Formats: sequence, C-alpha cells, structure tokens
Amino acid sequence: MTTADTAEPLLFTPSRLACLRRACAWLPILLGLCSPGAVWADEGMWTFNQFPSAKVQAAYGFAPGADWLQRLQRASVRIAGGCSASLVSPDGLVMTNHHCARLCIQNLSGLRGQDFNRDGFVARTRADEPRCPGMEMNQLVQIEDVTQAVQSATRDVAPERFDAVQKATMARIEKQCAQSEDWRCDVVTLFQGGQYQLYKYRRLQDIRLVFAPEDAIAFFGGDPDNFNFPRYDLDVTFLRIYAANGKAWQTPDYLPFAKTGVQDGELVFVSGNPGSTSRGLTLAQFADLRDHVLPQRLMRLSQDRGWISEYQQRGPEQLRHSNGDLFSVENTLKALTGRHDALADTAFWASLQRKEAALRAQVAAKPQWATAYGDVWDQVAALTERQQALRKHHDTLRDTYGSSLLSMARSIWRQAQEKTKPNDERLPEFSDARLPQLAQAVLSNAPIDLEFETAKLSYGLTRLRAELGADHALVKQLLGERSPQQVARQLVQGTRLHELQTDANGNPTGGLRKTLWEASAATLAASEDPLLRFVAAYDPQARAARKAFEEQVQGPLKKQQERLAQARFAVYGDSDYPDATFTLRLSYGRVQGWSEGGVSVPPFTDFAGAYRRHTGAEPFALPPTWLRQRQRVTMSTPFNLVSSNDIIGGNSGSPMVNRALEVVGLVFDGNIHSLGGDYGYEGARNRTVAVHSQALLEALDHIYPAAHIAAEIRSGWR
Amino acid sequence: MTTADTAEPLLFTPSRLACLRRACAWLPILLGLCSPGAVWADEGMWTFNQFPSAKVQAAYGFAPGADWLQRLQRASVRIAGGCSASLVSPDGLVMTNHHCARLCIQNLSGLRGQDFNRDGFVARTRADEPRCPGMEMNQLVQIEDVTQAVQSATRDVAPERFDAVQKATMARIEKQCAQSEDWRCDVVTLFQGGQYQLYKYRRLQDIRLVFAPEDAIAFFGGDPDNFNFPRYDLDVTFLRIYAANGKAWQTPDYLPFAKTGVQDGELVFVSGNPGSTSRGLTLAQFADLRDHVLPQRLMRLSQDRGWISEYQQRGPEQLRHSNGDLFSVENTLKALTGRHDALADTAFWASLQRKEAALRAQVAAKPQWATAYGDVWDQVAALTERQQALRKHHDTLRDTYGSSLLSMARSIWRQAQEKTKPNDERLPEFSDARLPQLAQAVLSNAPIDLEFETAKLSYGLTRLRAELGADHALVKQLLGERSPQQVARQLVQGTRLHELQTDANGNPTGGLRKTLWEASAATLAASEDPLLRFVAAYDPQARAARKAFEEQVQGPLKKQQERLAQARFAVYGDSDYPDATFTLRLSYGRVQGWSEGGVSVPPFTDFAGAYRRHTGAEPFALPPTWLRQRQRVTMSTPFNLVSSNDIIGGNSGSPMVNRALEVVGLVFDGNIHSLGGDYGYEGARNRTVAVHSQALLEALDHIYPAAHIAAEIRSGWR
Repeated sequence: MTTADTAEPLLFTPSRLACLRRACAWLPILLGLCSPGAVWADEGMWTFNQFPSAKVQAAYGFAPGADWLQRLQRASVRIAGGCSASLVSPDGLVMTNHHCARLCIQNLSGLRGQDFNRDGFVARTRADEPRCPGMEMNQLVQIEDVTQAVQSATRDVAPERFDAVQKATMARIEKQCAQSEDWRCDVVTLFQGGQYQLYKYRRLQDIRLVFAPEDAIAFFGGDPDNFNFPRYDLDVTFLRIYAANGKAWQTPDYLPFAKTGVQDGELVFVSGNPGSTSRGLTLAQFADLRDHVLPQRLMRLSQDRGWISEYQQRGPEQLRHSNGDLFSVENTLKALTGRHDALADTAFWASLQRKEAALRAQVAAKPQWATAYGDVWDQVAALTERQQALRKHHDTLRDTYGSSLLSMARSIWRQAQEKTKPNDERLPEFSDARLPQLAQAVLSNAPIDLEFETAKLSYGLTRLRAELGADHALVKQLLGERSPQQVARQLVQGTRLHELQTDANGNPTGGLRKTLWEASAATLAASEDPLLRFVAAYDPQARAARKAFEEQVQGPLKKQQERLAQARFAVYGDSDYPDATFTLRLSYGRVQGWSEGGVSVPPFTDFAGAYRRHTGAEPFALPPTWLRQRQRVTMSTPFNLVSSNDIIGGNSGSPMVNRALEVVGLVFDGNIHSLGGDYGYEGARNRTVAVHSQALLEALDHIYPAAHIAAEIRSGWR
Repeated sequence: MTTADTAEPLLFTPSRLACLRRACAWLPILLGLCSPGAVWADEGMWTFNQFPSAKVQAAYGFAPGADWLQRLQRASVRIAGGCSASLVSPDGLVMTNHHCARLCIQNLSGLRGQDFNRDGFVARTRADEPRCPGMEMNQLVQIEDVTQAVQSATRDVAPERFDAVQKATMARIEKQCAQSEDWRCDVVTLFQGGQYQLYKYRRLQDIRLVFAPEDAIAFFGGDPDNFNFPRYDLDVTFLRIYAANGKAWQTPDYLPFAKTGVQDGELVFVSGNPGSTSRGLTLAQFADLRDHVLPQRLMRLSQDRGWISEYQQRGPEQLRHSNGDLFSVENTLKALTGRHDALADTAFWASLQRKEAALRAQVAAKPQWATAYGDVWDQVAALTERQQALRKHHDTLRDTYGSSLLSMARSIWRQAQEKTKPNDERLPEFSDARLPQLAQAVLSNAPIDLEFETAKLSYGLTRLRAELGADHALVKQLLGERSPQQVARQLVQGTRLHELQTDANGNPTGGLRKTLWEASAATLAASEDPLLRFVAAYDPQARAARKAFEEQVQGPLKKQQERLAQARFAVYGDSDYPDATFTLRLSYGRVQGWSEGGVSVPPFTDFAGAYRRHTGAEPFALPPTWLRQRQRVTMSTPFNLVSSNDIIGGNSGSPMVNRALEVVGLVFDGNIHSLGGDYGYEGARNRTVAVHSQALLEALDHIYPAAHIAAEIRSGWR
C-alpha cells in the first residue's frame, strides 16, 4: 500500500528498501542472513494492466512487453470455484492442481461408482474424457477502468445507503458488459475502493477430465507436509475445455512447456488469481482479525476437522465422500493458523504499528490532508466495533454449513423472489450478469451424499443453536422440540431437491430441482419440501441481518476505505499494487531456496527424494504405479521447486513461466513463511512451491500410461 | 493485586471504589446502571487465615469470627480431582456437584453394567453405598506460613537453578509435615511468590456414592444453558466419607441446611477451592495468553469436541464412555472462550494497561523501588518470549492425550526411577508426600474402555506428529512406517496394563499393573509391554524438555514474579487477596440478580420454570422421574439462584452458607460474565450460580425415593 518514495522505515514497501529495512525489521534474530547486498525486489501481486515492467527490467534485465503480457493473460484461466489454471496446448488442454479438480474427480467417481481420487484417472482418447459436473472456467479478455462511474454514483450518498447504491451501480455496469450468457463481467474493487475496474471474462463451461494422478502422490506427505518444504507432490490434473460444438476448444494463446527446465536464481513469473490479502487494513481491523475473526474461524475449523476425521472412521465410502471437505478444512486451518501467528508476533505487530503511525503522521503534517483524511482511522475503528456487534448474528444466519442441499434450497428460494425485481435492486449474486453461473451451480449433476449432508446439517444446526442461544425465537421455530440431529435427518430424508435429470453432457433436462428453480415465489411458498419450508422459516431474518450489516457496517466501511485509499494515493502516489481480490495478477521472482534456522534449504527436490520419503503408511505411501515403475524413473529428475514469487491462496494451479513464456512449474503451495502473506510479504523466507515441469513430463511418460498427453504438450514446442 | 489506597482509577481494586470507576470503566455503554450509590464490595477469593472480617463488617454488618471460620474450613472438603464439597451431616454425608462425581458414577456404571449417569442412583441403606474407584477427598486442617524458609533457600540461587532448589525445599517441608499416608501437605505459592504457606490436609480415601440424580436434570439445558441464567439444574451428588474402620466417618464439623432458604440481597459466603486466576500477571503475559496460549487451547478443545461428538454416533456404549470427556471439553471450551473474550475486549485491555502503568509509575517515582523492581516487567517479557519458544515442545512431550493407560504407564515408568532418588531430588509428583495419592490413582479399579482409549491415542499421536513434524526423529521412532491409528491400536491391543485385581473395597490385590507399579526400573526396562516400551522411547526426551523448560523459563519466571509481588506489597501494602491456587478460599457476596442489555435478571428460578422449559428433546428433556412425580412437586419452590460471590472453576461443589453457617445453596456454575474472572472481577454482572438448598430437599422428598437422605440432612437441624 506504500511506495518507496517515503523515507520512513516501512516494512512492506515494494522493492527498493534494503534487507536491513525489510526482513530484518520482522525477524532480526532468526534470519541471520541480512547482508546489506541482498535486496528482495519481488513483492507484489500486480494487475496485468498496471504491471511494473520497468521495475522488473531494473532488477532482472527483462521487461515484459504488451504482447507478452496479453498472451500470458489469455493463457491463464480461472476456475470459478476458487483456483487458477493455464492452457498448455492449442487443443484446450488445461493444467491445474489436483486439489483444484478434486471435486470434479470426486463427483465423477460418484457417478461411475469408482474412486478416481484414490486410483487416479487417465483418458486414453478424447472420447474417454468425461465432463466435470458443474465446473466452469473463466478467461479474462478485457479490463476497463470504471472508477469514475462508480465513485460519482456514491459521492453524495449517506453511509447507510452507500452499499446499496454502489451495488446497484456495479450491477448496471456489469449487465451492460455481459451481453450474453457466454460472458461474465465483474466490477472489481481495487485498493479497497481506490480504483474500480471492470473485468470481462469468457465463460468456459464444458470442462472434461483428461488426467489425474492418485491422491497419494498428488498430496504426498498430507497435512504434515502441507505448507512445508522439501516437498514431493505431483499436485496436477489435466482438464480440457470443450467448445459449444462439442469439440476441443482451439486457441493460439497457450503456454508450451520449457524444454530444459529452470535454473536456481532464474527469473520466473506466476500468473494466477490470488484470493485475498489484507495488507491495506488499519490497526483496528488487524486487531479485530487477531482477537476475534481468526480465533473464531480457527475454532470452527478445528471442530470440523475433529468431527470429519472421526466421521471417516465409519467406513471407506464415508471417507471417500468426506475427503475433499477434510482436505479443505485442514488446508484452511493451516493457512489461517499462519496468519494468526503473524499477527501474534510482537515484532510483526510493531511493524504494522509503525506503518500506520508513519502514514498518520504524514497526513497530520499537511493541513489539507489532515482535514480530508485525518479522522479516517477513528471512523474505521468505530465501524469495526459495530461490525463485531453485528457479525455473529449475520454470519450465523448466512451459513449453510457446507450442505449442498441447503445451499441449493436457499438459492432456489431467493432466486424466485429476486428475479421479479429490477436487476440493480437484487442481491448481487442474483444479478443478470451472475445468474447463469449460479444456475450452473444449482443445476449441476454432482452427486450428493445424503449421509454426509445429514452430518453437516447436524453440526451446523448445533452451532446455530449455540450461536443464537436456545431461547432465540428462530431456534425454537427451526428446532421446535427436536434435537439438531433429528431435524437434520428429517430435512435430508424428506427433501426431494436431489432429484435432477441430466443429459449425457450433464445439462439438466428434468427433475424436481429444475422444476423448482424455474418456479415462481408463490409456487415455492406452497411447496411442502421440508428444506424449502426450512429456508422459508429463516430467510426473512437472514435477509434482515444481511441488510442491517450492509447498511450499518459494510457500506460505511467501504466509504471510509475509499477515503483511506485516497489518503495513501495522496501521500505515496499510485505506483503500488492493490490487495488481492481473486482476479488475475502477475508476480515476478526468482527460483531461490532460503535459510531455516541457519540451515540452507535448497530450491529443488528430485524423484529420488520422493522414493526415500516413502514409508508405506499414509500419508507417506507412494501409490502402486510409482512402486511398479520405479525402474523406469530417472531419479535425478527435479520434482518440486521454490521461488520468491509473492502469491497467496487462490494462486493454486497457477503456471510458473520463464521469460520466454514457457511453463517451468505448476504452483500448488506456499511454504510456512508465506502464511503471513495476507498481511505483508517477507522476502527472506516467503516462498512459492511448485511442481517442476520436468516432473510432470517424467510422470506422464514413465509412470502413467499417459505418454500421449506428454506428446500433446510437446506438440506445442516451437 | 492492588488496594484502594492509590488514587489511580484502577479497575480491580477491592471494594471501595464506586461503580463509576469500576464496572463503568469496563462496560460503560452496555450496563446503563451506574448509579453512584451502587458499590460492589464483593471482590476477592480470600484465604481463611487472612480473611477481611472487618471489611465484611463494614459492608454487611457481620464479622465472621475465628470459630465461625474454623468450623466452615473443616466442613469444607476438596475433591482431589478438582472440585469442592462440604460435609452436611454428622455421619460424613458430603454434598458436591453431579459433574464433580461424574467419573465415580461412570466408573460404578461400568463395574455394574448399568448407566447411573443416565438413570441416577439412590442407595436405600448404607450397605447399598458403593465405593467410588480412585476417589479421594482432602480436609484442610492447618495453615502455616513458610515464606521465610522457602525464600531464604533460593535467595542467592542462579535463575536456572531456582526452580530445582525451590522444589527441593518445598519437598523437604512437605515431607516433614506429612508424617504418614493419612496426611497430605502442600507448600502453596501465594501472590505469585509473595508468600509461601504450608497447607496440611487429612486424606479421606474411602468415598462412597449415596445419591445422584439423572444427568438429564443435573445438566438440564446442557451446553446451550451452561454458564447462562435463568437455570434449572439439580447439579448435585451426595457421597459419604467412610473411616478406616469401614463405618461412616463421624464429625462435628458439618453444615446443616437452612430451614427457611435465603432472601434476595442477603449476605452469603462461598467456601471452596477456586482453581486458578491470573489477576497478577504482567501485560506481556496477558498478551501471551490472548495471542498464543488461549487460541491454541481453544483450537485443541474444539477439535476434541468435534471428534468426541462424532465418536458418540458410534452407539450408546460409546456415548456412555465418552460423555464425561465431552462434558469436560465443552465446559472448558466455554470457560476459555469467555476468558479470551475478556482479553479481546478493547476496553478491558485498556484497563489492564492502565493498571500496569499505574504500578510502574509508582515504582519509577521512588528511587529505592526503581532500583529494586524497575526492570521486572522487561524481565518477565523476555522470559515470556523464551517460554513461547520452548512451550510447544514441552507441552507436546508431556501430553498423555487423555489416555488413562498411557498416563498410568508413564507414572509406573517414572516412579521406578524416581523412588531410587532422595526425596528432594525427585520430580515433585513423586515426592514422599505425594506418592500415596499417585498410587491411589494408578491402582484405581476404575474401568478402562479400550475403544475410547484407542481413539484418544490416535488423535493424540496425530497431534504429536503435527506438532513435532513428520521428520522429527522421535516421531519416526514412535510411529515408524505406521499411521497414528495403527500405532494406537497396537498399543492398546498389546498392553496388559489394564489388568488389575481388587478386593470388594477397590483395594488392589494383584494383576500386572500392581506388579509393575512395585517393580524396579530394571524390571520395567526388560518388560515387553508395548505401552511401557512406548514410554521408554520418548521419556528421556520428555524429561529433557521439562528440565529445559524449568531451568530456562519456570525458575527464572518464579524469581521475577516473586520480585513483582514484593513490588506490589511495597506500593500497595498486603491487604489484598492472592490469585487462586486450588486451595481453600472464602468469598462473600449477596444474593443478587443483574441487568442484561437493560433487562433485569431476577436472582431466583423455580420448579415451575423447569417444567416450562421441558421440550422433551435433549438437552431440554426432564427425566421420567420428574414427569411422573410432577403432581407431588411444589412448583413455587426455588430451584437455582445467583449471587455476587467472586468464584472460578474449582469452586464447583462449594457450599453457599448464610451468616448462621447454614447451607442455602450448592454452587455449580458462574454466569457468562464470570468467565473473564480469571483476569479480574466485574461486580456489576459477574454472578455465581447455585442450586437452592430447598430445591435439594424438595427433590429428595418428592421426586426421588430419597426421603431418608433428606431426613439425615434435617437431623442436623439445631
């Protein structure tokens, strides 16, 4: 949020401050490698239209040009569910992480009565590539600045109306942009309201599975190794985009694999969709995160981890159905623990205090700024307290406990009401520009496991009762004299929402869910489906809680954050990068190990290391394919690598490319020191973890019956 | 930790500061009841030998005298496992909470193949009173000041030797005091080292079950109502102490029930053993609690809550075996959440900052004090950081995951080594003064459920691997190529430590466990029992971690805390109460409701309210006895009540008495506002929750076939 123009010793300035000012301010004792010569120039999740090529030129002697940037932008695709990916052949072949395609693999397993997560999957021909239920990808084709339009609409609006007016403005802009269901348009809030930009995406909805390795090697080392390094994971899945004509989608914008790999110290770029960072918050907001938001989320995730682990003891079927959820819970748990640790670190906290104090001092020193922005921190602090008071109630009522059925029921219920309103008065997720994506999700033929749904609803309703209190009128209405377990069972056994017929391509053709999705509010109100009745009972209160939260907190806070962004622009100029927003960003860095407690961690691992780490017991058991093909494997082939790129959750599946725009890696993780990255980049030890491109080819060629896929990738070599 | 002598607006001064300074400083907006006339004089968990009778006289017009205090002290008994209790008949009848006797009830259920927790228990005659396996009570008979002896032994000792020298000194003093196995002596550290006192207890080891209601009414409202009010719980169990001659223990020091109950506003006393408070810590230590200790414990408890909840879905047997653990987890979870909330409250945090700043300012202002104590806060802060660095490793290696078998195995293993050393060089829990109690625990015939043991070890070993990392040599040694689940199964299936024969009174007569308890270290080292092998593998590292922690953190910290206590004595004098230490304390207060969000909460509930709250579904289902006897119950009988006494966990089971030393209530909980009591007392809303004495008689007389127990209680009426 700051530039290096100021002389203040700010921790998270991009690039030009020396180590002494940066990493050493954070972890002076542990690091012990702060030679004055070492400079980390690699901070930043930059937008493609404001990429600092000159800065990269200065640090690495290479400046990405407009064509280079555009080709990388178009070869990058976002997975709507929350991951990154890239095109790696002219025939629509897409590379992403196994953990990004886990739901697809799980769903296809359910549809075919097999376990492709456990056993892996290889399509021998295109005809063998099955469609992933409900999966969608988006390709960013255009960015347009709409700051003027958005800010002018809200300039004279009262705080409690701010959110509604801004959303309506955005909905109008998005609708105008997305002229058909083939496009998706989002107004993206950058710099916490300092800029608003319109992102236009091509929607790619026919995604099919080409190749997936076994879970045992995709997530080798499991939770113990997650966010650690050295690492030995083949965390990859290949998918293919199909066009409307049912044929593989043809595109000139793809990334070929590098022929010779990548060297230690080499410049590399990561193009992907970092989900969210919070580097521009105020101290009051950081304290709220440290003391309220994160502890509460960590407790909830820990409880989920506990019950799902134990649920898996019921049997192998239950394990298969719940493994994706457990993976997600453990992954988030580890990530949020790292974030909490960062805020709990007294030295890091002191750096946040210094950073805020420096900006406040500069604002206070200039009367014009003091008048315009001087009160913004106190305003944010007051709103943060208000937020604390309303959050629990709001969060509790918007939660669907991870239940697909409940989530669908609520979408069906609300859509019937929202679609009768003008576009710009709807809840944003029901705007014309977004409805197609929602329909795709609700009418997906992904299988639904009723036993796991019942368990999730049981724990969810128990939490609802705990959060609101047993005496709350809504709790009494929803539970009556029944226990959460009884209610969950009755809801899941009674509902028919799982009934959906689809054609061979997964397009919905009939069934109760489709009928209800198309029904009017009056028809739904008359329905006796217990899940719809359940939603009907609580939705008015849930909507009221949301409205109160948006009017009393969200809108006023957005207004203040816009002011804060303006204060930063005024003091530091606009040469910085915005906080992550799950939109396409480009980061640069180098292949580089780090020093851990005085011990050097090299940047590469190899196949020999994976075989050494094999114990035979979960999660350190290589799959049978790997044991069978051991003799065919070149043990010195590099396996995983680390680089200094500044990434965060959402970047999973991102391609790592060299200056020739060739794939050298597939990003799947960050190291443990990357976990504080939500609040700041610490170049000494924050590392991106990727599968080496040569590991992918080695595995396709020599371990799996997938040489044809390797050949397709090589066909793009120029 | 402070007195009212200072003019600073300190939050937690005892008594004399007006509301404006006290509650209003904490919760100015929410309360809205800060009339200048209201004064809360009720803070403090006072020791019996330093009770401020003059202060009570001033506030309530009644001064407890020496005889009064001594009788109450002797009528109060402590349950070794962590609760309070009292004698209520001359024939050794003891009253405590159901949740304090839960383990006894569960153990007896296991031995008899019944479920007394679910169904309740009534002994029709003394011959029907079964002995509680492993249960022990302690009666405090004498307190002696040993400050001089303890402090002089460590005065010139280096920080890293402080802990060992102090422990050796204490062990000597304790051994001298406890001349036979009938006595227990503890040197108690008061005021964080400001005073050391020797507490001598009579050990009462033959405890039998007399009466327990059903869990459904003992814990009516379950976790949702826990720490809340209005409340309707019959959280009582009557036990009986038996003397060595096998007859009921006779004592003149018992508390008769009040004949006419208690009135709103009436002065009441609570005598019991508050477990621990931390009101005397420094800001650095409070920050450590807020940012590290509490979040980590909350996450672990949340995970335990998750997996035990789900484990209970395996069936009714599993539910019965694990219910006690789940109760304990949920109870602790709620209590620690309340503590964390208190520290996360910005106004409360500001009050802690002011309190420390005030003391530091006074110390700094007087050169003599500045020299003697000026650096103590920085020293504590530095040690707190050191503690953070060592804590995880130490905690991980001392954990036995709630497994009885592992805990026993470790006690057996260590005892064989420790008993060959001189008394004052042993780990304190193996000193001569404490060994009898440990033997009682290890050789208890409490049943051990192997399935639940396996589950606890599985989750424990998974956590061990997560905490130390999969690459830790110890993890590799303990797990090898097996998963935590496999290891847990092998340990539990392979061990024979559960083999123990006892006589009809539960005294051990044979079996492998007894043999091993009496074996030499060499014999144990040759044993092939897998649990002993497991302990043997990790115990050297566990001991080393403990030694490092004691030398580098615990000892130096104790030394600094002694200095801090001296600084406080110097500045504020010695008229304050010490932090709680699970030793006998006396608190005074009045029966009093409070105001919640502007709504007045009356201090009493009645039986009619319990029947109104009955829904029929857990946890709001009254047991069948209550439904059957409904017509016999006088609905207006008071059920639960609240008072302003300053208590905390460990006070469960404490008698609440009037000035005539008659029982008017049985303390079983605090309200939600009591949960911050670890760090300070907030008189406006902090309330003790008790079962009304008339509720106990009403239930015994009219709901249960237990009129003979009511009659025994009434026989004490004078």
